[in-house]
Amino acid sequence: MNVREFEAAAKAVLDPVHYDYFASGAQDELTMRANEEAFRRLALVPRILRGHQPPGLGRTVLGSQASMPIMIAPTAFHRLAHPDGERASVRAAAEAGVIMIAAMLATVAIEDMAAEARKVADDPALWFQLYLQPDLGFTEAIVRRAEAAGCAALVVTVDSPALGRNERGDRNDFHDLPPGIRCENLRETGGSVRGVVLSPEISWRHLDWLRGVTTLPIVLKGVLHPADAELALRHGIDAIIVSNHGGRQLDGTPPAIDRLPVLADAVGGELPLLVDGGIRRGTDVVKALALGATAAAIGRPVLWGLAAGGQDGVARVLALLRNELLNALTLCGCDSTESVPRDLVLRGAM
Amino acid sequence: MNVREFEAAAKAVLDPVHYDYFASGAQDELTMRANEEAFRRLALVPRILRGHQPPGLGRTVLGSQASMPIMIAPTAFHRLAHPDGERASVRAAAEAGVIMIAAMLATVAIEDMAAEARKVADDPALWFQLYLQPDLGFTEAIVRRAEAAGCAALVVTVDSPALGRNERGDRNDFHDLPPGIRCENLRETGGSVRGVVLSPEISWRHLDWLRGVTTLPIVLKGVLHPADAELALRHGIDAIIVSNHGGRQLDGTPPAIDRLPVLADAVGGELPLLVDGGIRRGTDVVKALALGATAAAIGRPVLWGLAAGGQDGVARVLALLRNELLNALTLCGCDSTESVPRDLVLRGAM
Amino acid sequence: MNVREFEAAAKAVLDPVHYDYFASGAQDELTMRANEEAFRRLALVPRILRGHQPPGLGRTVLGSQASMPIMIAPTAFHRLAHPDGERASVRAAAEAGVIMIAAMLATVAIEDMAAEARKVADDPALWFQLYLQPDLGFTEAIVRRAEAAGCAALVVTVDSPALGRNERGDRNDFHDLPPGIRCENLRETGGSVRGVVLSPEISWRHLDWLRGVTTLPIVLKGVLHPADAELALRHGIDAIIVSNHGGRQLDGTPPAIDRLPVLADAVGGELPLLVDGGIRRGTDVVKALALGATAAAIGRPVLWGLAAGGQDGVARVLALLRNELLNALTLCGCDSTESVPRDLVLRGAM
Amino acid sequence: MNVREFEAAAKAVLDPVHYDYFASGAQDELTMRANEEAFRRLALVPRILRGHQPPGLGRTVLGSQASMPIMIAPTAFHRLAHPDGERASVRAAAEAGVIMIAAMLATVAIEDMAAEARKVADDPALWFQLYLQPDLGFTEAIVRRAEAAGCAALVVTVDSPALGRNERGDRNDFHDLPPGIRCENLRETGGSVRGVVLSPEISWRHLDWLRGVTTLPIVLKGVLHPADAELALRHGIDAIIVSNHGGRQLDGTPPAIDRLPVLADAVGGELPLLVDGGIRRGTDVVKALALGATAAAIGRPVLWGLAAGGQDGVARVLALLRNELLNALTLCGCDSTESVPRDLVLRGAM
Repeated sequence: MNVREFEAAAKAVLDPVHYDYFASGAQDELTMRANEEAFRRLALVPRILRGHQPPGLGRTVLGSQASMPIMIAPTAFHRLAHPDGERASVRAAAEAGVIMIAAMLATVAIEDMAAEARKVADDPALWFQLYLQPDLGFTEAIVRRAEAAGCAALVVTVDSPALGRNERGDRNDFHDLPPGIRCENLRETGGSVRGVVLSPEISWRHLDWLRGVTTLPIVLKGVLHPADAELALRHGIDAIIVSNHGGRQLDGTPPAIDRLPVLADAVGGELPLLVDGGIRRGTDVVKALALGATAAAIGRPVLWGLAAGGQDGVARVLALLRNELLNALTLCGCDSTESVPRDLVLRGAM
Repeated sequence: MNVREFEAAAKAVLDPVHYDYFASGAQDELTMRANEEAFRRLALVPRILRGHQPPGLGRTVLGSQASMPIMIAPTAFHRLAHPDGERASVRAAAEAGVIMIAAMLATVAIEDMAAEARKVADDPALWFQLYLQPDLGFTEAIVRRAEAAGCAALVVTVDSPALGRNERGDRNDFHDLPPGIRCENLRETGGSVRGVVLSPEISWRHLDWLRGVTTLPIVLKGVLHPADAELALRHGIDAIIVSNHGGRQLDGTPPAIDRLPVLADAVGGELPLLVDGGIRRGTDVVKALALGATAAAIGRPVLWGLAAGGQDGVARVLALLRNELLNALTLCGCDSTESVPRDLVLRGAM
Repeated sequence: MNVREFEAAAKAVLDPVHYDYFASGAQDELTMRANEEAFRRLALVPRILRGHQPPGLGRTVLGSQASMPIMIAPTAFHRLAHPDGERASVRAAAEAGVIMIAAMLATVAIEDMAAEARKVADDPALWFQLYLQPDLGFTEAIVRRAEAAGCAALVVTVDSPALGRNERGDRNDFHDLPPGIRCENLRETGGSVRGVVLSPEISWRHLDWLRGVTTLPIVLKGVLHPADAELALRHGIDAIIVSNHGGRQLDGTPPAIDRLPVLADAVGGELPLLVDGGIRRGTDVVKALALGATAAAIGRPVLWGLAAGGQDGVARVLALLRNELLNALTLCGCDSTESVPRDLVLRGAM
Repeated sequence: MNVREFEAAAKAVLDPVHYDYFASGAQDELTMRANEEAFRRLALVPRILRGHQPPGLGRTVLGSQASMPIMIAPTAFHRLAHPDGERASVRAAAEAGVIMIAAMLATVAIEDMAAEARKVADDPALWFQLYLQPDLGFTEAIVRRAEAAGCAALVVTVDSPALGRNERGDRNDFHDLPPGIRCENLRETGGSVRGVVLSPEISWRHLDWLRGVTTLPIVLKGVLHPADAELALRHGIDAIIVSNHGGRQLDGTPPAIDRLPVLADAVGGELPLLVDGGIRRGTDVVKALALGATAAAIGRPVLWGLAAGGQDGVARVLALLRNELLNALTLCGCDSTESVPRDLVLRGAM
């Protein structure tokens, strides 16, 4: 019926420790809750009598064609949610014509994800998420794997100079993957999540280096401050995902959707903005589009669908949100995802 | 005692599926709840020692004389609430001298409603609500029926280019009327609610067409954006109902009462404004009048009265609100419904 | 321990119908709750190291000397709270050196209250509250009784052009006093509360008439709009009680304490302002003084004390609030009730 | 896991009366709760890709070197929390390189605390908190003891011209220490807490006197009003602790953290500001630093650690907060406690 019901269904089948891993946020989870609450506080003021066909939902993002402006955000460890793991997620995404950002910490290798996607779609849109590693050789190797697998963009997570504090995880003593599941993109270093270094030493110079070693579009994920968006422009970044990591890194960061218009003002249309964090409804996507996003990304909803029903569950989550988005755009009087005016959103009314 | 008690009484007698149909709103029901909450957040700053007779409540709206500035908003399927259905509602309205807007999706034909009304009042004020249909022949036929039945105005619902998502209804699998009950205004097409087309193709040109085929005043119901109010002026519309459809269409629209002053500024007194959504108290009506409404319309309260007691229940709801309104106006120091100053309402105080 | 505990104690001993009469407010009781909540939302920013003696609490109000800037607001029917009724309340007030405003609807005659007060104090400060009656002869007669009894001021309630809607009272079917208890100030007309007329016809001309028939200071109780405060100045009124009748008349009026600074700006120091509604703590009194009140009046707390312990209970409530006020003023760095600066109060911080 | 869990652990082992003494605030505890809530309402907007080593946490405050910008605020009666009392707390502080402000109402003498501290650290940073007494001879004597014990600063509590009203304490009838525990800094006057005079007579002249009798830095604790901060500058005060006494003195004072930027503007960098009240997380410390504090002080968390585990418990609380602070600073993109920009904190976003 809605994403919330998928979460309930997922909770019913998941190992509680794994449910907590997916559901939890950093520390007091203030940001995680604020992400969803921020959408509820934004009102929509629809226009009437616009006289158009049902709105088209298609969107092109950095050259990747998508059937709707909803992407799959990178999330780790899909095989904890369902034995098929990222194979199921990527098949559902490819079938739905949705851009999926494969996680560096996926439990299925990027090559295998790409192969799965191509089983169901001619030109699936697969992007690759990356934590830049101080070991540039290792980083370059994984970039080459993503390129070879046909990934169309690199998404560099930049909000993780350290690991956020997850107290549910600590309470559950959850620090390692169970036997038989590993980070397949890290198999050269053993496949353990502990092989990934999150370091404050990573800097714009590392981005410049990356810019030099790949021709793929580079997307920064985790930008919240407008000064950083301006720096991104200067460093030739291709797109930004406005994100607080779903509230999993620094607790107390503001809701991503509220930062979106601030960053939109900062970049002045010079690069596309994406947003994730708290998107649970088609109306949330409309709000994101109105405030300047080219597309919105969902993380946990995909995991709830995956846990509840494997590939089919993910497909149903995507279909549900597509239907909600179509309904919301229609009710707002918009005839496409590109004609969502900023004054559709009203602050302070709810 | 108050409208809330009527709702409780109605809930006690109604089929839960039908109660949900009337009580529910779209999706998360944020707008539905916000409608009522918005009234509670508006304060009233009364004047003192005004020295006048008890205030008169009468009001003329688009030529229809009303005994008070409270109208009955169009709501569908009254026979789900009570076997007498719209016959009971319209008799109570006519007896009380209240303008009733008959719904296109009524379960009693407009001709029969008009006949019932004339049994109890010489000149009952009956308006007719309409979803403009892409099939203009069908639309014209129903307009002619409304004219022939003596309706004094046409209320065109413009917030429904698609059907809002009602999750309580979906959960209850409520999509059709029970045997023996049908949409009597649609009997030429079988009387099924599914005969009504809600289409984004409907545009201002359809309104212009309607303006050409009838001399009745045309009222737009469901306007929230000031730019649309300005368009309404240009298209010769006669009145506007500021409404979010009781929170049943697009979830996340702002409370109707909060949009009222915005639209009042936009139309600058050039056409009368009505408002519905969340009116449960006489003080709510005073707030609507202060913020620029000529009258306020009630939807669900009529259904609760109808369910709880048929015609008599509706009459009691109307009498209750009339008494509350009289009391509230008196306590505010107003001597008529036309002398309610805007500075009676204070924002940010509650 | 605090006023809240007195309320609990009173609730334990009172007939529930009578408890509801005292405790309830109009309709949804929004204003009643907002009165208390408004105080909690005001912060106090104390000053330090002021170097003074413990602050004196004495205050003169319209020539009446009071041992502290806390008065007893007029409340009806004290014999419902305790058999001794207003005899007990007025003795406690006189002993404490507190100004008491006797209610027109007292269940002990004003003459008897005055006599009781003089048993315990040489010059007790007793004021008289009045609903102006369309029957001016009756009104004059009661004014003469108040004058003869030695009342030092007349408090005219101006927020009651009609009776507010009390749903708890209606639910309890509470409309008359029990046998043996009557309104002793109305004994010439039978002593029934129904003898009092609340009429919207009462106007400034009635006030002008009253100004002509008595030399007592005239206080208006129930002013909330600054335009009315300006009118009061022009009509030679001596003081204003900023009040929403404890939330018992028009539900939805703003908290009295929030209107106080607005009215203080309107009168510009030309007449003293008093305030009632929601005062439960010594800090509340400090907030009232900072925002421009000469004194603050308490209603329900006196009734809780009276119900819980008769004269002694009222005395304990007054002592409790005196102690709290002394403590609060000291902690704020104020050396008297007249040196409470407006910037002691901060909005928007709590 | 976090400070809240330490409180739960402490509550489980403490005498409920003593738990209430530590946990409670004045009257309705509005300020106490607001202190914590205010931190949750401040958002953090991190910067990215700053490229630095893990941030150093060291800080020098008034010449005292500290391993992190978290101090121990003065709190009374540690032996109620644990038999080792302040001996345990000060050992944990000294071992952690943390500045501890010893309370005048400590249950271990300042000389003994200093001796304990020197057992574990060469140059422990111990400050001494003082209520200025009208008996200047007594005051001077205790200052001399603090100087002789090697205290590096005097912290004068200035928000206590009277004792705040603690209703939990009154309800528990808690007014004296149990046998065997006394205020060891007051042993010359019998060691009873009742020997301390809190008087509104204390003024800036007493501060001037103090300034003349000691060369130690003088810190004012309990400043909330910017005018007092300016007076502090003029009177040669060395630092200010922005504090509402943990909500234990005047209920209704604003959250300390919200006053910090106001006082920072008032002093314009001319003296260091510290802050206490509601700090429970490393992110809270980062917020304090961003808003102008040189360091933040914790009170109750130390007591919870002490109660739960004596010296080791305090050590664990300090280690926990240190880790949280290191993580938070890293995630914010700060490379030291001195490079925390004001625009890291955003109001109105949570």
